[in-house]
Amino acid sequence: MKKGILERLDAGEVVIGDGGYVIALERRGYVKAGHWTPEAAVEHPDAVKQIHREFLRAGADVIQTFTFYSSDDKLKLSGNVTDITAKQINEAACDIAREVANEGGALVAGGVSQTPVYRDSSSESEVKAIFKKQLDVFVKKNVDFLIVEYFEHVAEAEWAVQVLKTTGKPVAATLCISPEGDIDMVSPGDCAVRLVKAGAQIVGINCHLDPLTCVRTVKLMKEGLERARLKAHLMVQPLGFHTPECNHKGYLSLPEFPFALETRAMTRWDMQRYAREAYNVGIRYIGGCCGFEPYHIRALSEELAQERGFLPPASAQHEMWGKGLEMHTKPWVRARARREYWENLLLASGRPKCPSMATPQD
Amino acid sequence: MKKGILERLDAGEVVIGDGGYVIALERRGYVKAGHWTPEAAVEHPDAVKQIHREFLRAGADVIQTFTFYSSDDKLKLSGNVTDITAKQINEAACDIAREVANEGGALVAGGVSQTPVYRDSSSESEVKAIFKKQLDVFVKKNVDFLIVEYFEHVAEAEWAVQVLKTTGKPVAATLCISPEGDIDMVSPGDCAVRLVKAGAQIVGINCHLDPLTCVRTVKLMKEGLERARLKAHLMVQPLGFHTPECNHKGYLSLPEFPFALETRAMTRWDMQRYAREAYNVGIRYIGGCCGFEPYHIRALSEELAQERGFLPPASAQHEMWGKGLEMHTKPWVRARARREYWENLLLASGRPKCPSMATPQD
Amino acid sequence: MKKGILERLDAGEVVIGDGGYVIALERRGYVKAGHWTPEAAVEHPDAVKQIHREFLRAGADVIQTFTFYSSDDKLKLSGNVTDITAKQINEAACDIAREVANEGGALVAGGVSQTPVYRDSSSESEVKAIFKKQLDVFVKKNVDFLIVEYFEHVAEAEWAVQVLKTTGKPVAATLCISPEGDIDMVSPGDCAVRLVKAGAQIVGINCHLDPLTCVRTVKLMKEGLERARLKAHLMVQPLGFHTPECNHKGYLSLPEFPFALETRAMTRWDMQRYAREAYNVGIRYIGGCCGFEPYHIRALSEELAQERGFLPPASAQHEMWGKGLEMHTKPWVRARARREYWENLLLASGRPKCPSMATPQD
Amino acid sequence: MKKGILERLDAGEVVIGDGGYVIALERRGYVKAGHWTPEAAVEHPDAVKQIHREFLRAGADVIQTFTFYSSDDKLKLSGNVTDITAKQINEAACDIAREVANEGGALVAGGVSQTPVYRDSSSESEVKAIFKKQLDVFVKKNVDFLIVEYFEHVAEAEWAVQVLKTTGKPVAATLCISPEGDIDMVSPGDCAVRLVKAGAQIVGINCHLDPLTCVRTVKLMKEGLERARLKAHLMVQPLGFHTPECNHKGYLSLPEFPFALETRAMTRWDMQRYAREAYNVGIRYIGGCCGFEPYHIRALSEELAQERGFLPPASAQHEMWGKGLEMHTKPWVRARARREYWENLLLASGRPKCPSMATPQD
Repeated sequence: MKKGILERLDAGEVVIGDGGYVIALERRGYVKAGHWTPEAAVEHPDAVKQIHREFLRAGADVIQTFTFYSSDDKLKLSGNVTDITAKQINEAACDIAREVANEGGALVAGGVSQTPVYRDSSSESEVKAIFKKQLDVFVKKNVDFLIVEYFEHVAEAEWAVQVLKTTGKPVAATLCISPEGDIDMVSPGDCAVRLVKAGAQIVGINCHLDPLTCVRTVKLMKEGLERARLKAHLMVQPLGFHTPECNHKGYLSLPEFPFALETRAMTRWDMQRYAREAYNVGIRYIGGCCGFEPYHIRALSEELAQERGFLPPASAQHEMWGKGLEMHTKPWVRARARREYWENLLLASGRPKCPSMATPQD
Repeated sequence: MKKGILERLDAGEVVIGDGGYVIALERRGYVKAGHWTPEAAVEHPDAVKQIHREFLRAGADVIQTFTFYSSDDKLKLSGNVTDITAKQINEAACDIAREVANEGGALVAGGVSQTPVYRDSSSESEVKAIFKKQLDVFVKKNVDFLIVEYFEHVAEAEWAVQVLKTTGKPVAATLCISPEGDIDMVSPGDCAVRLVKAGAQIVGINCHLDPLTCVRTVKLMKEGLERARLKAHLMVQPLGFHTPECNHKGYLSLPEFPFALETRAMTRWDMQRYAREAYNVGIRYIGGCCGFEPYHIRALSEELAQERGFLPPASAQHEMWGKGLEMHTKPWVRARARREYWENLLLASGRPKCPSMATPQD
Repeated sequence: MKKGILERLDAGEVVIGDGGYVIALERRGYVKAGHWTPEAAVEHPDAVKQIHREFLRAGADVIQTFTFYSSDDKLKLSGNVTDITAKQINEAACDIAREVANEGGALVAGGVSQTPVYRDSSSESEVKAIFKKQLDVFVKKNVDFLIVEYFEHVAEAEWAVQVLKTTGKPVAATLCISPEGDIDMVSPGDCAVRLVKAGAQIVGINCHLDPLTCVRTVKLMKEGLERARLKAHLMVQPLGFHTPECNHKGYLSLPEFPFALETRAMTRWDMQRYAREAYNVGIRYIGGCCGFEPYHIRALSEELAQERGFLPPASAQHEMWGKGLEMHTKPWVRARARREYWENLLLASGRPKCPSMATPQD
Repeated sequence: MKKGILERLDAGEVVIGDGGYVIALERRGYVKAGHWTPEAAVEHPDAVKQIHREFLRAGADVIQTFTFYSSDDKLKLSGNVTDITAKQINEAACDIAREVANEGGALVAGGVSQTPVYRDSSSESEVKAIFKKQLDVFVKKNVDFLIVEYFEHVAEAEWAVQVLKTTGKPVAATLCISPEGDIDMVSPGDCAVRLVKAGAQIVGINCHLDPLTCVRTVKLMKEGLERARLKAHLMVQPLGFHTPECNHKGYLSLPEFPFALETRAMTRWDMQRYAREAYNVGIRYIGGCCGFEPYHIRALSEELAQERGFLPPASAQHEMWGKGLEMHTKPWVRARARREYWENLLLASGRPKCPSMATPQD
């Protein structure tokens, strides 16, 4: 019997999350950018299973179901499938996630995200009904816990937490906001307090901004909880891209989104630094979102191997800090088999006509 | 019955190659960098099958067997496996490639690369014996054609061509050299002439340098053949990275190799430009090497869709030139749903402390 | 009879300041970097006169005496001169400034800066005695007004204002602080209030940071004064360098200071933007500090020519927005003779191995 | 009696040239960009004298007369003056140059540049008549030697050398060409041979490209002369700007020309490297052109102080390799008082939205 998410966190364990699916599967040929719907769970289950498995091998303790934007209205709008329902996709996604999770000791998490309805009508009953419908599948398929993620308005996230709490399953809630606060300018500290009061046991940040910025926002949430004398576990699942010039609207404003983000991709060394910073701030659920590939998750697992007590399976194919280069035939490549080299490298872009920063558009 | 590689090229068809395996599978967690041995063909066949399948869906007409560095001496040196022989790996790799190739109309190609023995002893008989041993598996498994690839010395590549020709199967030969010539300063034109005289029906360039540089080198090969009144098909399988500052020693000299190449990754738009340039030069076998992900191969297929007469399966999840963004909710993202936008974008690196070019080390 | 500085500002006129002397004269060969003492006023008066004259021709309404770091202790420490006293230098500098100022309608301003004594002992009487000694020369030479400039501690600047006020001459006070506040974390708004209460009629910012940052800080000062229902004229004399990564310690922390600041130099177009921003914020005394060359001051005069009602003499050798290129023989250079071209140009550094931002050292 | 230019070079001395005038005086407010005519020699003689003097103090052994574009047709075209003739300007310029040169031991050089007539008609007699007219002033004013400079066609430069040789004065000839050759694709080696055969005793390169590129071209000239068994002194007076992306058309093609070249300006440390490279190639007349400020010339003098046996006057205000920072109050600034620091610094541009390289326009 696996330990649950709260048991792990209560025991002080570091929980590694998985990476994002839509960007990675877009590049593999299974998701359409702009639409981002997950019909591949039904149409190409092997491809979804494979990437789940790669995250698992990289050390992920949680497999999130591949159910992003999987509601019938979204599917209809995108026009990508006509013969498959959201329910079919969601059920298939739960089954796939469970199959892979059971290959290791991972937990399955089902997630809900912000709704177009909230922005249009702000009707509490309508919004809650949507979450309830998604929840039904997660309950039927018995996921291990639930994640409220990718919310720009803390008010809507509170409603989601309230709905998901009814199941009795643990609920984590992550907003996609910046250190300045949510889109209504509620501060990160206040957001955290409201989410915990709504019933979330785990709170934090996901998507929209780069790792160190997201860690900074979670730190502000933590301070808010401390001021309010509340307790909750902390979680972070940031972008795998550098976004230094982004404002609170996040990386959708970058001119490179979504088809030219290559140069912004983080290295494994960037990821180790992120994992350490997150750990030092007190975050114990550390994962990734859009832009995270399996080797990024492995880097988190490796940075925190001592704290966790073990290396992930995929580290059999990776030595820390480039040590695998020691046997290289070129002496100048061998010279790179050390930590200081990779930690201090200021990598060149190879694009002399391109700048370092863009002007966000919005 | 599939048409062979020469039938296709003779008929004027554009043949799309697959992408590189070792870098992509390193990031997925199945190959150890620095060692680059392909034991995953035996240990994780599903992972190898999956990436083959992604290239196939992206439009690849050729699946290369995942047999890079698969010789017993290399395996022993790396120490990654003790209970599997090179023969086992090579046979498994052939079977996997065949299985996936048959899911579409793709051909299977077996490849041989330069040997350490050549550099150490330059013994013709020893070097040829190594090629012969690798060839035995390809013959047994009945690959469709053979590729001599990743040679820095045209002299050694000639020997490889001579050995492979004995099978009667078509032979392609690609060197990893720059427009300046091979490592012994034999010009690209002379290299091409020698390879064709040795028996290659297809000649060109692979790896080491970025696409436009490799296309330039193939153009020099073509001109050499014309001067010598020889005929051969042209092929190119370059890096998927920008390497503007690299000299003829290639990207191993870059300080970022192999663990910090992220910023240099080409976009799909870079790839379309490459495909067009290659086509314009007269190259008809157009593929990729290290750094190519499935969506890069798809970009080649899409750029040349009109010439080929069809789009690849994975284009069901991709609209040309960002058109899939037309339905995006944010107006500034919708404004990106057009060709001029992506063709002219000078993407920012998001790394203000990093330069554009490195100083090659060697 | 010239109008005084307060008459001009009270009448709503835009007053253009001059540029910095020590960096410019270092490059011309008359000031030693690191020491920055002004013995050239005695040793090479023609060189000093010439640069004063260039600023005057560029539109400067104020000529500041070249007396920076001109105290006997500083001169002794530097060892640059043994036979000249600070008094001799200061008197010569006043005479030179007056001679050039009278060639146009400019005013002469004498300035005092922060003292090492303040940092070491914080003795009010000692610090004030130093300001008094400097003041004696300015009174004897009858400068038109006085400037308290380059103070990191508002507390010390208050003392300087108090001393200078005793002369009855107008007193301007500019701190070299950031939007975060002075070095003791007194906010810009509070700094402004304290300086005005101490007797300054003009307050603002000089040196240490780039123009737009300094304008931002002056805006905060203005808001502080408004909150306190105080009135004063606003002034800004920023660096002529881009310093986006600098913290409140300013450009001395940049690795490039002082011998490799070339790439950070602002263009004339940057300067026009700065002049406009400063004007829009309500600043009416707009000049420059280190890094300003004569053509930078001319750019300020040109941007505000309509508000001022005239162009400066040096504009006889300059047409706005590159219009002088209209007669160029090369068509592609002629195409640059327009405002949109220069306003939107993202100029390249010509240094592909150099980054965009440094890491401040301190 | 001063030693002549050939005596100095024959004796193996290093001759330091002066810097460019038009860009420097444009920034000081005395030259109009695009027009570049030198009426300031009559209208503002003190300003011209001052910059001559600064170059002299920086170590220049030659003062070039400020007579660029000073012909009646150019003056008329520009419309900058109506009451002054080219003859008046040229005579005034000679007098000013002589006055300053005599303050030190410097020589006065008069120069002629390429003519619009050559491009339009290629009439030898017309072109030669123009050179003859300019020469008359130089003879009357008895300059020490003559410089044929800024020619893109070696054919026209030959004519100029032939005309200037008639005076019996030494003649130097520098082309503004790239390592690829002149604009008619005559190689640098062949150009040098033709210039020497026409009568030039000194040959080399000036303007258009950055120092290391110009040194490379002079090296090719030297090799051409050696192959032809001819002897001549070598000279180089490059741009003071980095132009890595420029082709043979030079920096006029850069989008930043002429009003946004700031970021490309070379540092004093760049200049020392240039002086050393030029010296190592065998060049003994080493100066500058557009973009050189007095401190750049001083850097050449300092780098070659040991070879020359003395430091220039302006080095009294400058210590080698930043040593003047040793007495700085901030420890992190003091740490910069050493050669390795400045030699290895990769200076940041402070412009995160700007690229490293532009696309030349022409």
